[in-house]
Amino acid sequence: MRAGVFDSGVGGLTVVKSLKEHKLFSEIIYFGDTARVPYGVKDKNTIIRYSLEALEFFKNFDIDIMIAACNSVSAYAITELRKNAPFKVSGVIEPGVLALKRRSADKNASILILGTRATIESRRYETLLHKHGFNNITSLAPSLFVPIVEEGLFEGKVLETTMKHYFKELEAPDFIILGCTHFPLIAKAIGNYFPNAVLIHSGEAIVEYLEKEYDYTRRFEETHLKLFASENPDRLKATANIWLNDTLQ
Amino acid sequence: MRAGVFDSGVGGLTVVKSLKEHKLFSEIIYFGDTARVPYGVKDKNTIIRYSLEALEFFKNFDIDIMIAACNSVSAYAITELRKNAPFKVSGVIEPGVLALKRRSADKNASILILGTRATIESRRYETLLHKHGFNNITSLAPSLFVPIVEEGLFEGKVLETTMKHYFKELEAPDFIILGCTHFPLIAKAIGNYFPNAVLIHSGEAIVEYLEKEYDYTRRFEETHLKLFASENPDRLKATANIWLNDTLQ
Repeated sequence: MRAGVFDSGVGGLTVVKSLKEHKLFSEIIYFGDTARVPYGVKDKNTIIRYSLEALEFFKNFDIDIMIAACNSVSAYAITELRKNAPFKVSGVIEPGVLALKRRSADKNASILILGTRATIESRRYETLLHKHGFNNITSLAPSLFVPIVEEGLFEGKVLETTMKHYFKELEAPDFIILGCTHFPLIAKAIGNYFPNAVLIHSGEAIVEYLEKEYDYTRRFEETHLKLFASENPDRLKATANIWLNDTLQ
Repeated sequence: MRAGVFDSGVGGLTVVKSLKEHKLFSEIIYFGDTARVPYGVKDKNTIIRYSLEALEFFKNFDIDIMIAACNSVSAYAITELRKNAPFKVSGVIEPGVLALKRRSADKNASILILGTRATIESRRYETLLHKHGFNNITSLAPSLFVPIVEEGLFEGKVLETTMKHYFKELEAPDFIILGCTHFPLIAKAIGNYFPNAVLIHSGEAIVEYLEKEYDYTRRFEETHLKLFASENPDRLKATANIWLNDTLQ
């Protein structure tokens, strides 16, 4: 079983990490559009255009499924991708909502959605959560979280001050959807800020989704990972070494 | 006299502001590559490629000079742009260095260069400052400043904590080169942090440069401004209204 994982940059490696840990694929082809990152501040039409270009890239490989790890792509481009793809296409938004649903019997649970501006403005998480009966929802685009993660500040004063800036008027939620591939890297800090919240992580959610909705039950001893980037693949590989190796050793 | 001003996004409007205030041009054509912003984290070859695409755009207009307001473009693409342009091309790095030189008789003055990763890694400011006899130079890429400006946080705790993060080990400099078009918007906060430093602003520097090196002495009653963007021109126009109007009323 082979997957193509598409992201706007390096963030999607957090999804790759979950896919590798659960041994779902024999091969993962990763493409990060590092020359045009970030997508989360861009418009719907631009995101669709870039996603269809990524699709052309994946057509060169014999993959069974293309996974859009990027929430902004998942929010805007899945329909267009499915229309044009010769293989299955999955985003991370529906998996995230279903993962939350499995964890919450209480439809009144308070849910905080964190995402990029593009993801939040799409209201895709909200719409889908409503459809599943959840109504106590707050959406927030803490735009500085992505550059803070890219600066490697996974803890410390800059992150803490920035969390206070965005969170200070919020009541503690029951669930937090980490609706951006960068956010799992600061999950610990977000969890410290809201110690009673359950965090929903796209990587874990997509693994559950593939198992339950697509019947991916086979496990592979090894997942061969091929990394591609629209610029500076060496930087992507260096990040992959840091992010993936610590649990893969 | 007509100028084409090129920037990776909205930041170059700080340069437009200076050009308008000094009435150097009858018309300014502004192009912001908002679909691919930011450039400051991208590679040399990508920045050159995007700059040459912008050049093709400006060839559609009858301009006398193309001004690369973006420091990352100024650092990497000026030679290529000049090779291919049917009009004059100026960046902002040489103007910045000459502006500093005019303000400092003391070659031992301590200089802090603030820029994006691309600008700092290019060492273009440093090389040129060395050429003019300055040697007491510190270079720094405070990567979070650009997203903080784009988030509109021109003052307050997030900016202050982030300045401390980047500046805490620095001695107070005599001069600070604001080597990114976004930084003039937080010049006041940077000036508060280093109250004795003289700040060099690309917009003011390019005005002096055009006057002194290119003999731009004519003044125009009105500067007609045309704004173009590779995505969401409305957002660019809204920002232009906020950034430019306060002094242009």
